[in-house]
Amino acid sequence: MSVDAFTTAADLRAAFRRGLSRPTAGLAPGAVQANLIAVPRDWAFEMLLFAQRNPRACPVLDVTEPGDPATVLAPGADLRADLPLYRVWRGGTLHRETPDATTEWRDDLVAFLIGCSFTFEGGLAAAGIEVRHIAAGSNVPMYLTGRECRSAGRLRGNLVVSMRPIAADRVADAVRISGRFPAVHGAPVHVGDPSGLGIRDLGRPDFGDPVEVRAGEVPVFWACGVTPQAAIMASGVPFAITHAPGHMFVTDVPDREYET
Amino acid sequence: MSVDAFTTAADLRAAFRRGLSRPTAGLAPGAVQANLIAVPRDWAFEMLLFAQRNPRACPVLDVTEPGDPATVLAPGADLRADLPLYRVWRGGTLHRETPDATTEWRDDLVAFLIGCSFTFEGGLAAAGIEVRHIAAGSNVPMYLTGRECRSAGRLRGNLVVSMRPIAADRVADAVRISGRFPAVHGAPVHVGDPSGLGIRDLGRPDFGDPVEVRAGEVPVFWACGVTPQAAIMASGVPFAITHAPGHMFVTDVPDREYET
Repeated sequence: MSVDAFTTAADLRAAFRRGLSRPTAGLAPGAVQANLIAVPRDWAFEMLLFAQRNPRACPVLDVTEPGDPATVLAPGADLRADLPLYRVWRGGTLHRETPDATTEWRDDLVAFLIGCSFTFEGGLAAAGIEVRHIAAGSNVPMYLTGRECRSAGRLRGNLVVSMRPIAADRVADAVRISGRFPAVHGAPVHVGDPSGLGIRDLGRPDFGDPVEVRAGEVPVFWACGVTPQAAIMASGVPFAITHAPGHMFVTDVPDREYET
Repeated sequence: MSVDAFTTAADLRAAFRRGLSRPTAGLAPGAVQANLIAVPRDWAFEMLLFAQRNPRACPVLDVTEPGDPATVLAPGADLRADLPLYRVWRGGTLHRETPDATTEWRDDLVAFLIGCSFTFEGGLAAAGIEVRHIAAGSNVPMYLTGRECRSAGRLRGNLVVSMRPIAADRVADAVRISGRFPAVHGAPVHVGDPSGLGIRDLGRPDFGDPVEVRAGEVPVFWACGVTPQAAIMASGVPFAITHAPGHMFVTDVPDREYET
């Protein structure tokens, strides 16, 4: 099936379940998208605490029962198969990427669904602010920063951010619009100078694709739900299944549910 | 030492540590107050998940390391002794109340500090809205409702609310002002008719003291941080230490930190 901006969230999930694999920015506009991080029950308290202590990066939208791949955010969806691309982690290292994580899923996995900044991109576009990676048909650029998150038990790691170039005279609007969505990262954590976040080269993101920053534009950085993946790596979590960066879980929840 | 509205948060905690025991509404104005709920590490994930699933009733301000009575909300404070009155729970039943929980504290206790609606009472008063229980020098009335919380593993229970009578022409202002503080319960969950919450008699609160509802006033109900205590009872949690209702932990954090 071909997928475009008019495909519904449920149809998108069905297409992903059948094997379609692509980034989700710009798809199913109006539907909240979410990061996935599933860890063994033994690590669940620390993951939830890490999220609570780093709410800008890890706004929790739902937590599943151990082993259960169902979520209130999309009744009938199967978290093991309905994302376009997964990452399987062993001992804090990326083991493999797969479009279907059903065979790797475990009975003791607790899945966390975490807000994604794609959710407010519709609001930016509606205000006439170009979202560069959507216009370019690429994945959003993401960077591992030098900024340490607040640790939680065995879990520690640095903040990951997404970046969108914004025209200087629209930065205030982008702040205001995204700030209305605190449950999906909210307002930017940093505006301008990438070196302030310890980012050396905007042209070489740690996740996703680079985008052009044009004259008159400022790089604007939002806290990113890939942050738990950085924590998995830094903390050597023995086993985890996550989405692949930019390949999100598309929920049935309308954006406006999270607008304050 | 005598305590009045001019006593600082740190002086109040010191007085409570020395044995003073009284409700904290109206004290240390401008300082955030918090509910305490400490459960064994084995129950910590479910308590944090219960809070995440019931954010209106259980907005988490901090979670401690297991056994550690320290919190970032008030450096130097001792959560075992710095509250005016504690409740010790065994097998889901109130075992005893005590002004000092030091001897009962355990190495595996994880303490949750949860936002308290006393925090926005200063805002109500500043807008000329009388807070009846402060004017009366009594504890706020709280009621166990018939409304079930979303459960989390073994933890379940009904919503507890606090009630303030508000003049009909100030209800909108009370909603607006408290709504600016989502981290301390935010806007009311219910305005008017107590029977809609399953409350039979406003004159007989389940916790705290009754207050007068005058002609022209409407009872306004806010989600309350005593909700986890109702869950301890309903779920038979084997051991817990909490604050006594209305006898809060007074932090060093200014109210405005939680104002959006």
